This record gives sequence, structure tokens and C-alpha cells, in this order.
Amino acid sequence: MIKAKVVGACGYGGVGITELLTTHPEVEINALVNLHNVGSSISDVYPHLKGFCDLTIVGHDDPKAQEPVDVVFMATPDGVGMTLAQNELDKGAKVIDYSGDFRFNTTEAYADYAGRIGKPLEHLAPTLLPKAVYGLPELHRDAINSNTELVGNPGCFAVSCLLGLAPTAKAGLVLPDSIICDCKTGVSGAGKTPSPTFHYPARYENMNAYKLAGHQHVCEVERELGILAGEELKVTFTSQVVPLCRGIMSTLYGTLNNKISEDDIIDIYKEFYGDNSFVRIYSSDTTVGTQQVRGTNYCNVVISVDERTSRLRVVSYIDNLMKGQAGSAMQNMNIILGLPEKTGFDRPGMHP
Amino acid sequence: MIKAKVVGACGYGGVGITELLTTHPEVEINALVNLHNVGSSISDVYPHLKGFCDLTIVGHDDPKAQEPVDVVFMATPDGVGMTLAQNELDKGAKVIDYSGDFRFNTTEAYADYAGRIGKPLEHLAPTLLPKAVYGLPELHRDAINSNTELVGNPGCFAVSCLLGLAPTAKAGLVLPDSIICDCKTGVSGAGKTPSPTFHYPARYENMNAYKLAGHQHVCEVERELGILAGEELKVTFTSQVVPLCRGIMSTLYGTLNNKISEDDIIDIYKEFYGDNSFVRIYSSDTTVGTQQVRGTNYCNVVISVDERTSRLRVVSYIDNLMKGQAGSAMQNMNIILGLPEKTGFDRPGMHP
Amino acid sequence: MIKAKVVGACGYGGVGITELLTTHPEVEINALVNLHNVGSSISDVYPHLKGFCDLTIVGHDDPKAQEPVDVVFMATPDGVGMTLAQNELDKGAKVIDYSGDFRFNTTEAYADYAGRIGKPLEHLAPTLLPKAVYGLPELHRDAINSNTELVGNPGCFAVSCLLGLAPTAKAGLVLPDSIICDCKTGVSGAGKTPSPTFHYPARYENMNAYKLAGHQHVCEVERELGILAGEELKVTFTSQVVPLCRGIMSTLYGTLNNKISEDDIIDIYKEFYGDNSFVRIYSSDTTVGTQQVRGTNYCNVVISVDERTSRLRVVSYIDNLMKGQAGSAMQNMNIILGLPEKTGFDRPGMHP
Amino acid sequence: MIKAKVVGACGYGGVGITELLTTHPEVEINALVNLHNVGSSISDVYPHLKGFCDLTIVGHDDPKAQEPVDVVFMATPDGVGMTLAQNELDKGAKVIDYSGDFRFNTTEAYADYAGRIGKPLEHLAPTLLPKAVYGLPELHRDAINSNTELVGNPGCFAVSCLLGLAPTAKAGLVLPDSIICDCKTGVSGAGKTPSPTFHYPARYENMNAYKLAGHQHVCEVERELGILAGEELKVTFTSQVVPLCRGIMSTLYGTLNNKISEDDIIDIYKEFYGDNSFVRIYSSDTTVGTQQVRGTNYCNVVISVDERTSRLRVVSYIDNLMKGQAGSAMQNMNIILGLPEKTGFDRPGMHP
Repeated sequence: MIKAKVVGACGYGGVGITELLTTHPEVEINALVNLHNVGSSISDVYPHLKGFCDLTIVGHDDPKAQEPVDVVFMATPDGVGMTLAQNELDKGAKVIDYSGDFRFNTTEAYADYAGRIGKPLEHLAPTLLPKAVYGLPELHRDAINSNTELVGNPGCFAVSCLLGLAPTAKAGLVLPDSIICDCKTGVSGAGKTPSPTFHYPARYENMNAYKLAGHQHVCEVERELGILAGEELKVTFTSQVVPLCRGIMSTLYGTLNNKISEDDIIDIYKEFYGDNSFVRIYSSDTTVGTQQVRGTNYCNVVISVDERTSRLRVVSYIDNLMKGQAGSAMQNMNIILGLPEKTGFDRPGMHP
Repeated sequence: MIKAKVVGACGYGGVGITELLTTHPEVEINALVNLHNVGSSISDVYPHLKGFCDLTIVGHDDPKAQEPVDVVFMATPDGVGMTLAQNELDKGAKVIDYSGDFRFNTTEAYADYAGRIGKPLEHLAPTLLPKAVYGLPELHRDAINSNTELVGNPGCFAVSCLLGLAPTAKAGLVLPDSIICDCKTGVSGAGKTPSPTFHYPARYENMNAYKLAGHQHVCEVERELGILAGEELKVTFTSQVVPLCRGIMSTLYGTLNNKISEDDIIDIYKEFYGDNSFVRIYSSDTTVGTQQVRGTNYCNVVISVDERTSRLRVVSYIDNLMKGQAGSAMQNMNIILGLPEKTGFDRPGMHP
Repeated sequence: MIKAKVVGACGYGGVGITELLTTHPEVEINALVNLHNVGSSISDVYPHLKGFCDLTIVGHDDPKAQEPVDVVFMATPDGVGMTLAQNELDKGAKVIDYSGDFRFNTTEAYADYAGRIGKPLEHLAPTLLPKAVYGLPELHRDAINSNTELVGNPGCFAVSCLLGLAPTAKAGLVLPDSIICDCKTGVSGAGKTPSPTFHYPARYENMNAYKLAGHQHVCEVERELGILAGEELKVTFTSQVVPLCRGIMSTLYGTLNNKISEDDIIDIYKEFYGDNSFVRIYSSDTTVGTQQVRGTNYCNVVISVDERTSRLRVVSYIDNLMKGQAGSAMQNMNIILGLPEKTGFDRPGMHP
Repeated sequence: MIKAKVVGACGYGGVGITELLTTHPEVEINALVNLHNVGSSISDVYPHLKGFCDLTIVGHDDPKAQEPVDVVFMATPDGVGMTLAQNELDKGAKVIDYSGDFRFNTTEAYADYAGRIGKPLEHLAPTLLPKAVYGLPELHRDAINSNTELVGNPGCFAVSCLLGLAPTAKAGLVLPDSIICDCKTGVSGAGKTPSPTFHYPARYENMNAYKLAGHQHVCEVERELGILAGEELKVTFTSQVVPLCRGIMSTLYGTLNNKISEDDIIDIYKEFYGDNSFVRIYSSDTTVGTQQVRGTNYCNVVISVDERTSRLRVVSYIDNLMKGQAGSAMQNMNIILGLPEKTGFDRPGMHP
């Protein structure tokens, strides 16, 4: 069995990958590492895991935490992975980091990102940046493979925007500077730590925009779309939070360069993603929502053309904790370990 | 006391105005008319009204329903008001209609609207259209006054978009064809009739776009913004539903014609709406959401400039059943009856 | 105008009474006092109040906070009111305290309560206990009057249980030791402070029992029911939290002493509460829920007899922040200031 | 592969077993039968199944629906299974029926049940009743085995009450007639058909008791507890609905016959259920809720003794659509097909 370690096991990202690995046929969890809850069973912290995963949580200095493993998930906040990755790589592990630490290949790009979240602009492991790959396999199948050692798992909003717009950018369907990403997320995107904003009474029956000055995920969106488009571009990006737990709905707008039908665009998207991918393409008369991707690694993409205004409108739906986080992480793991990409993703989710 | 009648009293729009009139100091309800529940007390249908309003619901043919009153609220679906309004006007009542029947002044404009909702294109009371005024007082203070006999109460999405964009359109801040309205509504916007889409298990933990082919409220938005801008314009309009009950958040985009600061735009908005209005203007670093307007007739408007992309972004928040429906209706009533505009709106809502 | 002061203005209890007083015809708020947010406007903390109440929050030592007023609401945690009340009384104010500080007339009874919530057992103002009255007017109309200086506002669960069981206890309908109170509360009952338990993602789609070792409100329930029954009694009390914001549903059980019909019990209840009270009595075939009391000071009580098991079952519904807290406080204020009991309660709530 | 057929595939019970069978290692679905949606793919009706199960839904008369299979799930309303079961049994299938049709072994017991739900009192397949077994394996391990042909899957409330009280009844811990079951369910328990009661705006922020005259699941509870206790008994049973989708919390009360500690009762429960069961036992200081069983076949049981009143209080948590319905059905299938009981239940659910 492949051995895995989860660092930051008690956050939503950590418990997410723990749930998934528990039923993965080729992987076993060797250690769950966390700052808090050390000495407790993970199933005391998350009782739904009882009988499925009852490992004891260990601290970073615990010998168990130091055992070599095949793959390490850094389900940690920005700034942590960059201090730990080299050591794991030296021990022969592959590293998948959830934060922005390894999403950028230059210190300048990282600094732009770090500035948006109030972190120090200096990257602490600049020599690792060239070997890090951006972990969105649908866009980087060439770069993510069994030689990959270090993956920067993408941001949740970025996943939804990029999967919704990548074929458009590649095909040059819209004016590069006409793109608007109107993104709505469920509350789990903010993580496990309680705050006044996400206190149940303040959040039920409430929705609002936030970080209007600029959400950090826009950096990834612009970089990746620019690569696909072959030119730099800027997008307007709005982050909003609505009263549900899991789910991102991103409504993406661009002004069409030329008259093109919805059906033709659907063909472009289907060709881009191919069969058997985690992206499902729908026409504008289909009703799907975030509930139809909840608990799964799928991204549902609805294509619509507003002929009156010559605009393309794409609505992209993901589960922010799955394709937006732990699901993408396990998908990346499968690929870099040489396993079939969908291994362990045999669940359709549940309804209602 | 001014006498009022509510037709369609048992829908959400009907009970909404009934709640409001119950505490209005100058008005009393003379009759509650409805197709169903005839003979029941309104407080049997809506038990929260017990002790506040216990009137018996009467059918359209009931003598009580035929008594002359000062003001009639047609809280009825599209197509009903146009068959009843003339008779009420003949009896001397002022009529406020919730539907699209009297939001348009020409049969052509009505036909465009009617086509979008699958209704017959022919208007059944075309002679009334010229005397109907569009009931958004913030835009039509000249037209809505004590001489007004017939008001077409605006659509809920239209209210949120228009209050968010009117000063921009009037001042010509953005390119006319660059406007995008990304609108999210709570579930009560769909009314009281159960359906698979709004069944609790299908709606909790779900959000989705709908009517991508074109929501009917776009007609009002384009007409009104065009009047303000002094030229025809088209907008891209997206309707989306999220899992809360009351609230609309419309995120409104436009490409700025010229460089202008957020503060200057705020000044333009404040001047446009003036003091003591139902519109509150906020800067982009303020966090307000739909919870802060719930149960009230206020519209909260947040102004933001995305300098990177030269776009204006306005976020507009209303309670769809208040400023988006019954609240606007009562505001219109106050004005056309010569009462102070805010009479009966002395509630701040409640939190949480 | 009567002058009021709210201490602890920024908690849910404080903002609740502030909302209510804002529209009270006879009272004006003289000062809003709070530990935090000093110097901010209350409408910055609670933006829905903007234009309704924009008073600046002052600290305890602020001269404004020290001005004499007619009535002081201590919307403060256990242990605070007992340190402040004497000073307010000395200045001539009447004091209504939200906590358990003045719900008990003896230091022994207080100690029993305090022990259940981990507070020091010693009461810091024991000389005030004899003059404190228990602020449930439906049970203590004789004691609460214009001579009352100090009111201990009841606990939210206690209100729901007592209004549901008082006529039963008084009439001796059930075996004294057969009473079980199965109580479910919305999340706002836990107050405004964020915690892991009430973080949106941990609370949506979740319900659980808590404090199985014994919730502190049982003390009030047993004391009051004992007074009514004329003998000491013990009840089994279960507190549970469900995913909504406002509302308590208490399902109350007791073994009937004698065969009696639902109708006869309804008569007993109606006679006990009389006309024009805040208690509405319903038969078992009526469907009402917490939504029908939300935002109001009403308690809906449904009577049911399970003839198969000779048990009485009463279901009692309140809004925990209104009749369970701020609403009862204002009701008490009205009475002790000599105003009609329902003054300022002219709102039916809103639906949906 | 074992072949399965699901009748009533498009209800919540049908899609529930379809989700589960999709990932079952030993079973494949041969046919999905339904009255409506015939000719559509199940993944058009439930888009989350796309790529996991895309079978076409067939009508009852379709040849595909008539093919012999190994096991048939009757996910159908009361009264349907009794008309179809004999034919399936004749073709050699084992039948698991979700409704009350086969939960009772006598026509008299069925008539009592049928009367409570307004169905005809006569059973249409009385000769099958003696061979039907009550599908709660934790109570009937002897009767449910590879010889079993016909299973009456238990009611959701009954599962929660019985798993919570069975060891108590068997051990004679409480007075037989002192038992009260206070049950709260999420909205999905009412099924997929929209109704005013479960319309999102009427259900969010609402909770209420219903069927106070007597819920039909009480029949199963009394029968099974009586068997365990060795004497007839009656319970008071209250059904309540709260605003969440999946989950039942049943709070169960009984007066203790003798003084006994919580720890001793826990031992009794652990011995009753044994290791490796779907029931997890917790002490009263543990916080678990319905979220910890969501999406799983587990029942979490919290034991508490109220020494002040000599009462046992057990809180039982299940997912009403899993252990309360489709999960129990698949568990029964595993057993009667000779598979390990937990086959296909390798998911811990997900959090949050």
C-alpha cells in the first residue's frame, strides 16, 4: 500500500482528504499531523470517522510524524508548506500543498498573491518554485505526471473559474479584457475556525459580497487564462458568500469576438475536456446546481450565449471542499503516483 | 381612515401588504379577496396574524369585495390586474398592481415582456397603459403623485438593479452596452406555490442559475436605464436562486467611461437619492448583506471601483418581498394618497 | 418620554430591546452601554438599525452611561446585573435584568442555579433578592406592578415550559413527578459569540441534545410549577439545539391524574390566560410552528391528550429572542411603568 | 454479479438504494422501474448520478422490468408492495419492501397500522405475512438469514426508537408504560413530493409537531419493544419536523425500575449490540448529533440517567434516508444474500 501523511489533519481540508483516503483502494494513511488535538483520535474530533479512521493525531515532532511516506498532503494555511516541503522531498515523499505557497513559479508572482492576503511578500523556499506544478490536471496534463514531486493545489474559486473558462480562453472566443467572474461560495470555504461572519445566526438568511478590493484567487485565474489565451489579461473578480455549506457557483461573462452558437461552444468544451473527465458540459436549458456536485470531484459547466448582447455566459458548479480542495488533491495524487485518475472517486454523492 | 382592499390576499405579496397595512396609522383594510380560502379567516391561513388581522377572506363576487375603497392592491399574477383595474378605477379607487400588467406604457413593450413569460402577447386593457406609472418612486418622483390613479409596481429584480445603477446611467459613468446584472434571489421570490424546485430538500444546500434564455425583468431594467441614459441600451441579466428565503443581492458591472474614484461615485449616488430616502449608500470596505435589509423597505448599495480593469461594480441588496414587492407597493400608496412616503415603515427589521 | 438605558447593548438581547424601543411610542433610549464597540454607532455594529437608531455606544464610565433614567435593561451575562443594580436603583431607575441574577429570592436557590452554569455560588447583592420579582407576568400579575423596582427576566426555555404547563400545574391535572420537558431551541439562544458548535458549517444540517447533565433553566421551571401546584416537584428537562435561528419548541409531557378531554383542558388554559394575553391556545389538530411566533411576543400552545397512554402533551412555541428575552423584558417594562401591557407590540411578525 | 431491481426508483428511497448499489462490489442494478419519468435516464432525473448510473427508467410493463432478478427493492408507498411481491417471489427474487405492507405478521396488526395512515384496512396479500420478517437485523438476527425471502423494511422513526430502547426493554430497566418517544425528523422524511408544508419558505426557520393524534410508526415500536420486554406496552410518541434535510433525533424517556448508573447501562447496550455493529454507544458527556451520522448507516446512541427524577434518557441519532430507509434495506439485502453485513458501507459520510 502507498503510505500517506496528512499535515493539518483537523481542518476541513485535512478531514476531507482523510475521508477520501480512508476508502482509497491503494493508499493507507500513515500519520495524521496537527497542531491542536494532539493525542486525540481523529474520530474524537470528527465522530463520523469512528470505525473508519481512528488514528491518533500526532504533533509535528512526533516520531510517527517523521516517518517517511510516499505522499504528503499539506492541508495547511499559507506559509506553512514552504517551511516543510523540502524536508519531505528529501525523504523521498511527493508533496501536495493546499495553500498558495506552490501555485506560482516565480517569487514575483508569489509576492503579488501574498500581498493580497496580508502575508510576508518573501517566499521562504524560492528554490522549490521551479519544480512546483499547478495542480489543475485538466489544464496541465503534460506537466503533472509520475515525475512530479511538488504540486500546488489550486484555489477553490480558481478551479471553478478556470474549468468554466479554459476552453474559451484557448479558443479565443471572447475579448481578453471583457472577462468577469462573479463567484458565490458556501460557508465551508472559510474553513473551520469560528468567526462573527460565519456564526450561524449571522449567516443563515444572509448573503453578501466581500473582499471587494480584490480576492487573492484572481492571480491564478489571470495567470492560467493568460497562458491559454497566449496573452496577458485581467479579469474582474467578485467573491460572495451565500448561506449553504458546500458549493461554488461561478457565473462567468465575456464579450464574444464573433458570432457563435451555444452548440458550437459546447462542442469546443467537450473536445477540450474529452471523455471520462471530471467536467460535465450542459446546455443552457438544463437545470443543475451545486447540489448535483456536492460530495463529488465533478465540475458541472453550463454554456449560454446571450445573443442580444453578444456575450458568452458560463455557469460553473463545484463542491469547494472536493474539486475545490481535497478532491483535486487526491486526483493530483493519483496522477503523480501513476494510478488511474479517478481511483477512489467512485461515489456519486448523495441526494437530497 | 383610508380604506384598502387586497386582491390575491393569500399569496406572499398579499400577506406582505396585509402585514404592513395592519400597522399603518392611516389605513384600514376593508376587504381581503382571494380565489382560494374563501370563508376562512386570514389568520387561519397565516396564523401569525391572529389578533392583528382576522378578517374573513372573500371571493371576487362577494358584496364585501365589491365595496368601493380608496386603494386597491392587486397582488395577483400577470394577466389578472388588466381585467379588473378599470372597474376599480371607475369606482374611484387608486390601483396598485404587482404584476407586469401596468409596468409598460405601450402594447409593444408589454408584448415583449409577455412573450418572455409565456403569456398572451395582447394586452387586455390597452387604454389604461398611458395612465399607468412605473412605481419606482426613486426614479419617478415627478410622475408619481396625488393625481396618480394606476401604478405598475416594479419587478423585484428590477428594483435591485435600477436602484443600483440609476445614478450611473444618469451620469453616464459607464459604456451603455457594458452593463451586466448578476442577480441572486431568495426562494420566496418564486411565491407560495410548492414545486419540485423549491421543495426544501431540493433547495437547501443548492444554488443555481435559471431562465438563462432571458428573465422578464430585463425589460424594465433596460427601459428605465435607457431613459436615464438618454439612449437605448441592452444589458446581460442572470437570475440565480440561493438557499435563503428573503433577499436579493444584485452585483452590477459596467466599464467606466473615464477614470473616477469610488468616493466621487458615492457622492453622485448620494446626491441622486438625497437624504431620507430608502436607499443607503456604502463604500466598498463596508460589509452589509441581505440580512441588514430583511423585513425593511431599504435598499443598501455598495459602490466599488475595480481600477485594474476600469470597471464599476455596484452591489445592491433588498428584501425581495419588501422593497421588491409589498414595501414598494405601500410606499407608492403613501405617495399617491398624499401621505409622507415613509409612513408605516418605522421598523428597522430584526437581527439576527 | 420615558428614558431607557440598555446595558450590554451589542449582544442579541441588547439589540433586541433596542429594536423594540425604537418604535415604542412612550419610550426613548437615552444610552446604549457596552464593553466593546465603544465609540461606534449602534448602526455600525447592526447596520439594519441605520436611520432608526444611530446612538453612539458608550462605556460604563461614560457620563452618558451614568445619567439617571427611568428604566435600565441589563442585557448582560450572569453575574453582571448583581454588581450594577443597586446603583441604578439608588438613582431611581427601575431595573430589568436578563440573567439569572434576580430570578431567585433566596441565596440558596441562586446557588443551585449558579452551580449549574459554573459560576460562583455566592450572590453579590443578596439584599436585593427579596425585592426582585420573577418577570413572567402571566404567572405573577399580582407581584409585577407599578411598585416593582427590580425584575428578573425569565430564561427562554423556562418561559416556554412555564406558559405550556402553568394551567396544568395549577389545576393539578398531572402527577407532579411525571413531568418531562423536551425543549428544542434555535441557535440564537446561544448568543452572539462565535464558537465551534455554532459555526455555520457545523450547525446547518445538524441537531443534538446538550447539557444532558442538567440545564440551568430547570430551576425556574420547578420552582414556578411547584408554586402553582402547591407542592415541590422535579421535572426531567432536555435541551436540544436545531438548525434555525429564532424559535423554541418545547414538548411537555405529564401523566394525567384523571380522564379529561382535550376540550376541557383547552377551556382550563383559556380561562387561565384570559383574553388579550400573549398566549394563544390551539387544539391538537392545528398546525402552528415557531415560524408563526417569529418576531413576536406571542406563545402558541397546542394541547393534546394521548388517551392510549393517559398522558397530556403540550407543545409550546415562542421566539426565544422575543417572548424568551427582549419581548418579555419590554412587556415587564410596560407593566411596571404603568403602560398598557401590549404597547409597542403591534407587529404581527412577518411571513415567510 | 447479483442482479437487483428497484421499483419506485425516482423517489428518495429509490434514488437512495440506487446510489448505494452503484458502488456495491457484488451487486449490479438490472432495472430501475418507476411510474413517472419512464424513458428518461435516471441521471437526467438525478444529475448527480451522471457517469455513475445512467440506466433508463422503465415502466412496470416493460420487458426489462419483468426480467428475473435476485433481489427486488420495493421503494414504493404503502399498498404497492403487497400487490407485486408474490409475482417477484414466484420468479425467484427476494423482496425488500420499504412500506408498512410487510412489517406486520397478522392482518389485525396491519389493519391497526393502515388505519393510522388512512389506507384500506384489508391486506391484499395476507398469505405472505407469515413469511415476512421485520427488517431490523439488530433485533432479529435469528430470523433474517439466507432463507429469508421477504423483508418488511422498518419505518425511519421506528428504527431510531428501537435501536435506542431495545437493550432497555430486553433488560427490563424501565417501567413498561413509562416510555415516551420524542422524535424529530428532517424534511426528507416526507419524501420527494412538494407540498405547502415543505415548501422552502414555509419550512426554513420553522419547527412543529404533527400527527399529534398518533403517528403510524408507533405500532412497530410497541410491537418490537413488547417482544423484547416480554409483555405488552404502550408508548407516547411525538413526531416533529425541523428545518434540516437528513436526520432523526429521537429522545427517549423511561422511568427506571431500579437505581442503576449510566456506566452500567452503557455496558448493557454494548453487550446487546456487540462489536462491529452499526450502533455506536456514547456516554452523556459526548456531543454527537445528526451530522455525525449523515450519509451513513450508523445509529449513534447517547445514554443519560437523570438521577434527580430516576429517569433514563436515551438520545438516538440516525440518517433517516440511510439507516432509516435505503441503508437498512441494503443491510438486509447483504444478510439475506449471504454477504458480509457491512459490504458496500465503507463510507464514513462527509463533514461538514
